[in-house]
Amino acid sequence: MSAALAHVSRIARRAGGTHTARRTVPEEAAVALSYGGTTHAVMMATPADLEDFALGFSLTEGIVSSPREIDSIAIEDVGPGFDVQIRLADAANRRFEARRRRLAGPVGCGLCGIESIEEAMRAVPPVRASLGLAAGDVVEAVQRLGERQALHRQTGAVHAAGLYVPGKGIVAAREDVGRHNALDKLAGALARAGIAGADGAVVITSRVSVEMVQKAAAIGAPVIIAVSAPTALAVRTAQTCGATLVALVRGDEFDIFTHPQRIRDGAARHVA
Amino acid sequence: MSAALAHVSRIARRAGGTHTARRTVPEEAAVALSYGGTTHAVMMATPADLEDFALGFSLTEGIVSSPREIDSIAIEDVGPGFDVQIRLADAANRRFEARRRRLAGPVGCGLCGIESIEEAMRAVPPVRASLGLAAGDVVEAVQRLGERQALHRQTGAVHAAGLYVPGKGIVAAREDVGRHNALDKLAGALARAGIAGADGAVVITSRVSVEMVQKAAAIGAPVIIAVSAPTALAVRTAQTCGATLVALVRGDEFDIFTHPQRIRDGAARHVA
Repeated sequence: MSAALAHVSRIARRAGGTHTARRTVPEEAAVALSYGGTTHAVMMATPADLEDFALGFSLTEGIVSSPREIDSIAIEDVGPGFDVQIRLADAANRRFEARRRRLAGPVGCGLCGIESIEEAMRAVPPVRASLGLAAGDVVEAVQRLGERQALHRQTGAVHAAGLYVPGKGIVAAREDVGRHNALDKLAGALARAGIAGADGAVVITSRVSVEMVQKAAAIGAPVIIAVSAPTALAVRTAQTCGATLVALVRGDEFDIFTHPQRIRDGAARHVA
Repeated sequence: MSAALAHVSRIARRAGGTHTARRTVPEEAAVALSYGGTTHAVMMATPADLEDFALGFSLTEGIVSSPREIDSIAIEDVGPGFDVQIRLADAANRRFEARRRRLAGPVGCGLCGIESIEEAMRAVPPVRASLGLAAGDVVEAVQRLGERQALHRQTGAVHAAGLYVPGKGIVAAREDVGRHNALDKLAGALARAGIAGADGAVVITSRVSVEMVQKAAAIGAPVIIAVSAPTALAVRTAQTCGATLVALVRGDEFDIFTHPQRIRDGAARHVA
């Protein structure tokens, strides 16, 4: 597998002058996820931890419900990218083929618009775990994730996702040029290690789109902690599925958008 | 069409205390782009400027080569999202249906991995325009784009793409929760206004993935100016297609990664 980093030459304009220097940039590659020999999705991703990616994507997209439903994952370097061949166990494979046939219209990939939108907006599983975090846990979760961002330290250009468990810190973390990919890789890493998402908070360095809430719920994590801001649809989805959404963590300040009962000292006391 | 902004309640933790306050967050909606009644793609996007989005996506994805190849664009609010129905003119429609049939394998959407990767990594058109920018233009382009980021000023959470023409400033700009969507909306806005991409630089607030280089090349812009960092594949693709890639613009400092001849005073003088 190719390295996750590359070194390129660039002309740096600094203080009115210019000089040539090297810079470390993140690698990016087309990664095809194929089930039963047919591609389901192609993503531009950091070419590292691709087994985690394949397993995590299969889990968060609902293609499998446990790692046991995957017989094998084979990664092939095909030159312009990586072909990840996933073999599903019999029952999962029958379910997947039925879904694929249902999605396949008369001229190929065709759903009509409303069907496609409903597929994209599929119901998010309810999140019920009763995790309790102190305000200090929120701050520590983001700080500790920072210590696990090796690619980001060298490039300033990749996202990370981790699982923070109170008293244990960040128990797993993954990085990727794409924030959705980083979260899928985390999902796969957790499943392979047998770590239950319900025991912790998903911590992400990025903004929070609805897909990040969907994937965190699929992981089973009752709390999402994000460095940046959420969308309105992410807030509504977290509210509906019962997840606690904390965002805009800056130093020891942060915002709680939904279900604040899981954050101690998080209830509004109207001090301002 | 729903508004691009929403106002949500959140508990703000500040200086050790908490209070309840409102925050403005960007809306996010599922947008299906359908050709001939069948969905081609569903994106999570800011529900604004959807005609620009449909036209720009059609252009940058190579589905049409000019706005004249689109007969009509109809936008329907379907509740959980927006269905954008695009009607192609006859010749474009025959081309598109042939491509769709080629992509459709025996069980549905199926290409094998290598075919899917080659489709994703399709050759980028060469960029030949001889635009010349001063170093001051690079700085001004980013500053002027900032003045056009109305949604971002209110939310701190959306990306923007604009076209900067020397002596004219930012001649068009669009915002979206997704950086690819912002650039597609810009492509559509330029085509509708009859503005040639070859006359200017595409300016983006985000990182530069390979897809941003592909789309800028489809717009015909010979220069890309980005606030954040590029991936290695974006650098290689810009090098190959002949585009000047400027990134990491911070105040009056920036890095030139490829084809520096279009930036005056951009040649390395080895001052450091």
